[in-house]
Amino acid sequence: MIPADGDLAGARDRLRGRVRHTPVVRVDGRDVGSRGELTLKLEQLQYTGSFKARGALNAVLTMPAGAASVTAASGGNHGAAVAWAAHRAGVRATIFVPSFSPRVKQDAIRRYGADLHLVDGFYADALEAARKFAAEHDAVHIDAYDDLATVAGQSTVGAELAGQIPAGDTVIVGCGGGGLFAGVSLALRGRNTVVAAEPESAPSLASAIAAGRPVDIDVDRAGAAVDSLGARRAGSIATAVALELRSPVLLVPDEAVHRARQQLWDNFRIAAEPGGATALAAALHHAGDLPRDRVTILISGANA
Amino acid sequence: MIPADGDLAGARDRLRGRVRHTPVVRVDGRDVGSRGELTLKLEQLQYTGSFKARGALNAVLTMPAGAASVTAASGGNHGAAVAWAAHRAGVRATIFVPSFSPRVKQDAIRRYGADLHLVDGFYADALEAARKFAAEHDAVHIDAYDDLATVAGQSTVGAELAGQIPAGDTVIVGCGGGGLFAGVSLALRGRNTVVAAEPESAPSLASAIAAGRPVDIDVDRAGAAVDSLGARRAGSIATAVALELRSPVLLVPDEAVHRARQQLWDNFRIAAEPGGATALAAALHHAGDLPRDRVTILISGANA
Repeated sequence: MIPADGDLAGARDRLRGRVRHTPVVRVDGRDVGSRGELTLKLEQLQYTGSFKARGALNAVLTMPAGAASVTAASGGNHGAAVAWAAHRAGVRATIFVPSFSPRVKQDAIRRYGADLHLVDGFYADALEAARKFAAEHDAVHIDAYDDLATVAGQSTVGAELAGQIPAGDTVIVGCGGGGLFAGVSLALRGRNTVVAAEPESAPSLASAIAAGRPVDIDVDRAGAAVDSLGARRAGSIATAVALELRSPVLLVPDEAVHRARQQLWDNFRIAAEPGGATALAAALHHAGDLPRDRVTILISGANA
Repeated sequence: MIPADGDLAGARDRLRGRVRHTPVVRVDGRDVGSRGELTLKLEQLQYTGSFKARGALNAVLTMPAGAASVTAASGGNHGAAVAWAAHRAGVRATIFVPSFSPRVKQDAIRRYGADLHLVDGFYADALEAARKFAAEHDAVHIDAYDDLATVAGQSTVGAELAGQIPAGDTVIVGCGGGGLFAGVSLALRGRNTVVAAEPESAPSLASAIAAGRPVDIDVDRAGAAVDSLGARRAGSIATAVALELRSPVLLVPDEAVHRARQQLWDNFRIAAEPGGATALAAALHHAGDLPRDRVTILISGANA
């Protein structure tokens, strides 16, 4: 099941004035060793430092009436986003994160007043712990990417882009579980081609498309974007969207992601996290396969 | 003497497509403990990480015909900007910086292929060395702020703002030698009030206005913004502009500058240098004296 047009419109209305309308900047591709002109969507300016604030707030604001507590599992960004959204809405949040997630993200979660639980293992292990806690404590679990409300929230990035870039431009989005990819793809459906960019070390969407359904992959714990894009399997929503829209997926080596991070800092003073740099890495690594002058890169976050 | 309208128009035409048109973002003032809505002009996205690229490139592109070499003196940002502009124009650059200027800025200057000379002392000492070198080697000296071409180049920040914010909004600009302040004030003259923000530890423009002419001040070497705003005296152009336009000046304590830097990172993932954060510090420290909902902050750079 994928979000309906009404879900997207509802999220747009609900989040207007509650999340930041992030700007774009047009830059010369030659500055980063590419060609033509690139557009950067500066979503690292968003509340909590990433697009995750949108999905989290939409999910919190559409909870069943009477619910007073939420849980989330997250390598970090979604956890901080749910903690922030819950704080805004006056709701208690309990967040479960893999113990190897960056300290800066753990601190952000605590700063928003949430209870933080460290879980040994990967994202999937934190997810299991969060779901168990939700069931036992009657809390509402907010999934990081495979949830209608979350994806509808992320779609508002795409709705903003519709007012910022021409129809026909190609939009490249970093992809982990695929919530941002799915939301942006739906918002720009029929207007812009949305391409998913994945690190070679965690090709969850490419694997799902090949199999025709989400499948578990081996996530390289040392991979470039493991803390933000290292989902063990793509969401069912993202997979359904990619199959329906025949979305292109670009895989990029870890070195290209590291290089893109450095370029974002050297050229634009953007402190992108690896996940946030994956889209640029894909644009540069696959420049020959992309249209010249018509490419938009989504800078999804800056929690490094 | 201050730049004429023709100088400003010339700089606008000359720099179009050669420097970045930087975006603005509208944010909720409550996010930083203020009120109403703030607009941030994201000039840290500019080439070389600060607005200085504009003035430097305009100066290099308006050199006397036949000139083949330039010099500059700078705590860092102007030096990097002249090195970058000279590289773009295929001209040799020799840059003089105070030896205590941040290593990251020195490295940037070298990266653009310029010759770098470290000078013991303050900005004024580096300036003297640069002028001496220029006279002896027949190079064109590009002043960091007290030069018609430099100020005209910085004015293009204001020209962009004229298309981004409503007439009547108050614009706050960090001020060291005053090149940015002067340029933006002239570009927005009659349309927007432009306020200069200075650290209390280096009130060069406030002192110049009080005296009716540029005067030497004691710059506190430990001051918050000494590397980017620590000019020992305001430029004669900035002083003339401030006297003619009766420009307001806001002084801010160093602690407020440090706090503003932290807030820019925590809230917007902007890694502003102290000079780049001084405008926000002034907006927050003097919030009671400023119009609500009509304030634009110029984030001038991010070379920390």
